[in-house]
Formats: sequence, C-alpha cells, structure tokens
Amino acid sequence: MPIKDRRKTHKMQSICFHFCLFCVPTAAVCRRAGEALVIEEIEVAPPKAWEIRIKVLCTSLCHTDVTFWKLNAGPASAFPRIFGHEAVGVVESVGDNVEEVKQGDRVLPVFLPDCGECRDCKSTKSNCCTKFPFTHYNGMPRDGSSRFKDSNGLDMHHFLFVSSFAEYTVVDIANVVKISSDIPVDKACLLSCGVTTGVGAAWKVAEVEQGSTVAIFGLGAVGLAVAEGARLRGASKIIGVDLNPDKYGIGKQFGVTDFINPTNCSEKSVIEVIREMTDGGADYCFECIGLASLMKDAIDSSRPGWGKTVILGVEMHGWPLSISSTEILRGKTVTGSFFGGVKAKSDIPFFVKKYLHNELNLEGFVTHEISFQDINKAFDLLLQGKSIRCIIWMDK
Amino acid sequence: MPIKDRRKTHKMQSICFHFCLFCVPTAAVCRRAGEALVIEEIEVAPPKAWEIRIKVLCTSLCHTDVTFWKLNAGPASAFPRIFGHEAVGVVESVGDNVEEVKQGDRVLPVFLPDCGECRDCKSTKSNCCTKFPFTHYNGMPRDGSSRFKDSNGLDMHHFLFVSSFAEYTVVDIANVVKISSDIPVDKACLLSCGVTTGVGAAWKVAEVEQGSTVAIFGLGAVGLAVAEGARLRGASKIIGVDLNPDKYGIGKQFGVTDFINPTNCSEKSVIEVIREMTDGGADYCFECIGLASLMKDAIDSSRPGWGKTVILGVEMHGWPLSISSTEILRGKTVTGSFFGGVKAKSDIPFFVKKYLHNELNLEGFVTHEISFQDINKAFDLLLQGKSIRCIIWMDK
Repeated sequence: MPIKDRRKTHKMQSICFHFCLFCVPTAAVCRRAGEALVIEEIEVAPPKAWEIRIKVLCTSLCHTDVTFWKLNAGPASAFPRIFGHEAVGVVESVGDNVEEVKQGDRVLPVFLPDCGECRDCKSTKSNCCTKFPFTHYNGMPRDGSSRFKDSNGLDMHHFLFVSSFAEYTVVDIANVVKISSDIPVDKACLLSCGVTTGVGAAWKVAEVEQGSTVAIFGLGAVGLAVAEGARLRGASKIIGVDLNPDKYGIGKQFGVTDFINPTNCSEKSVIEVIREMTDGGADYCFECIGLASLMKDAIDSSRPGWGKTVILGVEMHGWPLSISSTEILRGKTVTGSFFGGVKAKSDIPFFVKKYLHNELNLEGFVTHEISFQDINKAFDLLLQGKSIRCIIWMDK
Repeated sequence: MPIKDRRKTHKMQSICFHFCLFCVPTAAVCRRAGEALVIEEIEVAPPKAWEIRIKVLCTSLCHTDVTFWKLNAGPASAFPRIFGHEAVGVVESVGDNVEEVKQGDRVLPVFLPDCGECRDCKSTKSNCCTKFPFTHYNGMPRDGSSRFKDSNGLDMHHFLFVSSFAEYTVVDIANVVKISSDIPVDKACLLSCGVTTGVGAAWKVAEVEQGSTVAIFGLGAVGLAVAEGARLRGASKIIGVDLNPDKYGIGKQFGVTDFINPTNCSEKSVIEVIREMTDGGADYCFECIGLASLMKDAIDSSRPGWGKTVILGVEMHGWPLSISSTEILRGKTVTGSFFGGVKAKSDIPFFVKKYLHNELNLEGFVTHEISFQDINKAFDLLLQGKSIRCIIWMDK
C-alpha cells in the first residue's frame, strides 16, 4: 500500500495492536556509534507496574537521536541501543497501577517525564520532573533496567525513555500522553518532541506578545516551530537566520516574514542587521542550533529594556555561554528549557486541539516519508540537511 | 542644632529654598580621580527649558559614586566633577515647559531618566529611557552641557544627571520625582538610588513569590534592600551571603533568615550549601557585588525548573559572565536591571506609600550622619565597610 494512503487507514479503521504471539517484533538496532542501524528481531518484555507496552505506528528522526548515535564515549554512549524518541503508538498492554490509559488508546511517548506528583510536575512553572531526573536514560526511568533483549537474550539499551525505532516499546506512564485519535498520526508524531519544543518555547517560555518582533537563529524543525508558535501568538515580524537560503521559502509557511543569510550581510554583523530591522533589537530571540557564539549573538540582538533570549540548542562543544553582564543590566533576560517548557500531559493535548481547530500549522514539517526497513535513509536525509522531518512508518 | 533634630525641622517647618542672591552656593568638588573632595564656591546656572533647580536638603554616598571617583581614564572619567546621585531636595525654580513640579515641591532627583514619552518609558516592561540614554552623563541629558562653573568661571562636570554634592543643583524634569513631604528626608533620600534598586529588584524584576526561597550575594545597601523587598513579598527563607560576619545581625532587620560566610563553609562550596538549605536551589538569587564569578555562583545556586537570578552589580573588572548553557536549558533564567527595574515617576511614590503605611522598613539603612563639610568622612566610612548609608546634611 502506498505510504500516503496509510495515514487515512490509521485514522479510519481500528488498528490491530495486539502483541502477536506468533510474530517476533523487530527493532532498528544501533550496535556501534555512528554505524547504520540494523533491523533485528528482538524480545520486548511485558510492561511492569506503572509501565505500558506500545505498538508504534510511526516515528521520526530528531537531531538529538543523531547526536547520541554519534557519541562514542561517556556514560550517555551505550550500545547496542534502540534509538528514536518521536513517535505515535497504540497501547498494547498496561502494567499494574496504570489507570491513565487503557489498551487501544492512541498515545504519544515523550522523553521528558511528567510524573504529576513531584513539586515540579505539580507546579505550572517547571517541566523538569524531579522524581525521574535524567539519570537512567539508558533504561527505564524507575530502575534503569531494560525491557529489550536481542536474539541472543542480551539486554539492549533504551534511549531517552522512549526507544521508538521498534515495532513495540515499553514506556513508563510518566512518559506517555493520551491524545485524540482525530489527529493524523504523522501530525501527532511531530508533537512528540521537536515541533512541540519550538512552539512551546514561543508560547510558554517566551510568551511572545501580539505585535512583537522575533529573531530565530537556525531554521531546523525546532526553529521553524518557534516561528509557527510566534505566528500563532501574533508576532508582527519574524526574522529567520540561517546559512541555507532555501530556508526562507520553507520558513514563510510558518510565519517567517524576513530572512537573514549571515554570509550575505556584507560588512554588517547579523546583530547590526537585526537591530536595524527591529528599531534597536528584537523583543524575543531564540537560539535553536546549540552554538555558544550564536547564543551570544542572540542576546546581543535582543532589545534593551525587555529583550528576552530563549536558549533551545544543546551546546554542541560543551562550551560555556559568555556574555557581557552589562547587556543583562540593560534589562535583558536569558532563559531556556528542554522541550519548550512544555508539560507533556497538559500542554500536548492543548496543541492537538490547536491543530484540530486549524490554528496550529503542522503541514510542511513532514518533508519525507519512508518505511521502517529504510530507516537509515532518514539519517542520510537529516545529515544532508534535506529533510525537516522524515516520518518512518512501522507497518511493512 | 544637632543633626538628628534637623530631620524633624525639615518635616515641620517651611524650608527657605530661595536662591539667595547674596549667598554663594558651595559644592564638594572632585578635582582629580581618587582625591578628597574640596568644598568650593560655585555658580549654579538657572534652569533651562525642561529643567529645575533644586536646593539639596540631604544627600548620601553610594558605591557608584566611589567607582567613578576612582576612575582615572576613559570617557566616564571627567574632572573637575560634582559627584552625588542620591538626594532629596526642594524645587527652587523651574525652567520653561516644566509643569510637573513647582517651586517648593519636595523632590527626589534620580539618575535614570523617565521621560514619559519614549516607547520604553510608556511601556510597563522597561525602565531604560531611550530618549535620554547614558551618552551625556557628564552633563545635562538633553545637550550634554554643564550648569556648574567654578570660581574661575570654568565649567565643571555633572555626574549621572544629578550631582547632589552641592547646595544647589540643576536636573532635567525627566530626572526628578515629586514625593510626599510626609516622609522624613533621610528616609526619602534612601529611595533615590540604592535601596530602591534592591527593593525594586525583588519586587519588580524577580517578582518574588510568597513562601519562596531567596539567596542574596553581598549584603551592602542594595543586597539588604533586596532582602527587605523579598521580606515584603513574603519570601519564607532569605539567605544572605557575605564575607563580613557582622552583616548577619544587620541583615536580620531586613528579613535575612539565614547567613552564609563563604570562609566558614569548610569543604563545601556556597552553591552546595545553598542547594542543601533550599532543597535543590533557591527560587531567586541576586548578585549585588559586581563579580562575574559570583554571578555564576548565583546562577548555579538557583533551582532548576524555575530558578531566576537577578544581576544587580556592575562587573568591576569588565569581565564577561561565563555560564553553562545546560544550566539555562534546565529552566533557569538570568535577568538584570539598572535601578531595580523601577520606573522612577510611578514606582518611587509607591514605595514612599509602603513606608508611610509601615510596610517598607527603611530604618537601619542609615548608619551614619554627617555635615556637608565633613563629606570626605562618608567616603572613609564606605571604603572601610563601616557604613550602609551615611546621610550628608547640607545645612551647615
């Protein structure tokens, strides 16, 4: 069946989500850092207490997968491993104490836990769950153990509590959000990480205001989603900054009104150009790449008095952010978040509604679609800068 | 008349504020960087349009005066100069176009202009007037010229648009706030810069919440005023950090509940101690010294998820602030302001009311009082760390 038609099918007919006793599930396993994934038959353990087993419908590749896929040293480098943390699935079975979802529910797995019990999860101000901090991200959040075995019976590592590059996966109830089945699965998949991060950063972290000016450094999926969030919040000028000139055309779909290619600024710096375009500096700046120098540029491009810079990129060299404290004294703010400040269980259903009400534009993020067995093509497309999001459909 | 009695007099009887044709006003003039001030007879020009001439009632010495007094190079180093930017006065005469105040009004001169016309002054979010930026702070804000001449008829430099170490001074209407004459002048004087900066930072920049935890790095006048602001906002734990153990006793008057002397932390860092005292990090941290290393400590001591650090100190070596962007990604915020984010014309009268309603505690900030001719003692007291605020009374 052609890939495009399958989206319709997922929406219209009931899905066979039962764990088939006669079928052996497969996963795209990464055996060594930077090596192509291999489709292997695996064992997926039943869910323990507070866990659910999910039949993955589709998944997509995010830059964070690629960053960890390349990582060949340190505690976060763990192989063999099943990557993937953006996905949509159907609950196949639930463990003890799980009341929030039931078999057959459409769910999004999310890498950031939302336990609902700790001080952070109970607060409206934080999305940094303290009950399940990022100490066990190679396994399950409660005990760090694995639910995956390879065909030799050896444990395989999880990734960011999700591991969606598998036909079935097990996630903690803190890492799952029940969503309406009205939203097409490929659109829902976008909300599992990258797009939510960008929209959330504009909506919840920056709280972009009507008529304000915005500068976005880096127009990947997250940067484009920041633009979409800023557009939704009523920003009047949304400046995209990217070295790839094609990003202007793509960005326009998400509200980008102006574009700066730093290589075309002649003798002016990007900071000077933004200040000129915004009468002194942008009200909101977003760094979506992960470069300390760009973070500084973003802060310097923000307006004295009330300019707010939101850091979203994970600094790729581990370099510190070095800024003039005088800039801060001039009334500027620097802030940041994982996952766009989004509290998964309450905010993702809100964004789903925004999509279903034709307010949130999710079209255009999906630039490619492939079948699961071709998953390595998704890596090629992202590494070559050709894709924004590539949907990987699990049914063969 | 003893100094203490004079406060009463200022409140109860009308003040002779007329510019005496037969008296020559004096000022404490700084002829060279770091040298003792000299009481000299001066000429004070009448106010031009949008200006007022003030009879200074009392003034006080702030660390910023001392910083610029020491400065012997660069465009901000300008001598001869009349320092002083914390004061209370009475309007002696007004120039054309001045309607906001009239002769006899009690006023506070303030270093930060509040023109009421520019986008920043009209906004509730900014206190960085863009009509009068800090480009002319050696003279008057509109044209940079001086209103002071020495006995040889040579111009003398202003300081931060105020120059209150003089019996009479001229300030722009943008740099003056009319206040109630019910507040004793020495208490009002505190609100002209340092105390307002601290209280404003807690009240307006951080917006400290009821029951929250606060850590203050540096318990000078600004740091103590942060404590007072945090106390007013209902903080439950206010931790003072200072190398001077005497500051704990002083700080208690302003709501400091806990004290850390970094030299007494044995093997733990101040960051670790604060994290332990606050179950993971303070909700609000304030840097009130001006050291990049302390700014970093403040950020590291703030709570992931929502911790907000407010920078108030001007970095004394011009060093950049170097922070881990990962700390920012964990939901932390760094912000700052001049003058505690306060918009002079609307916020200072608010704080005056808070004092008159016995909510804002201004007692205890005034540790010393001297006569104008002894002004150099105020420098000695501040440099020796003996005074919080020394009120300098102008009438001989």
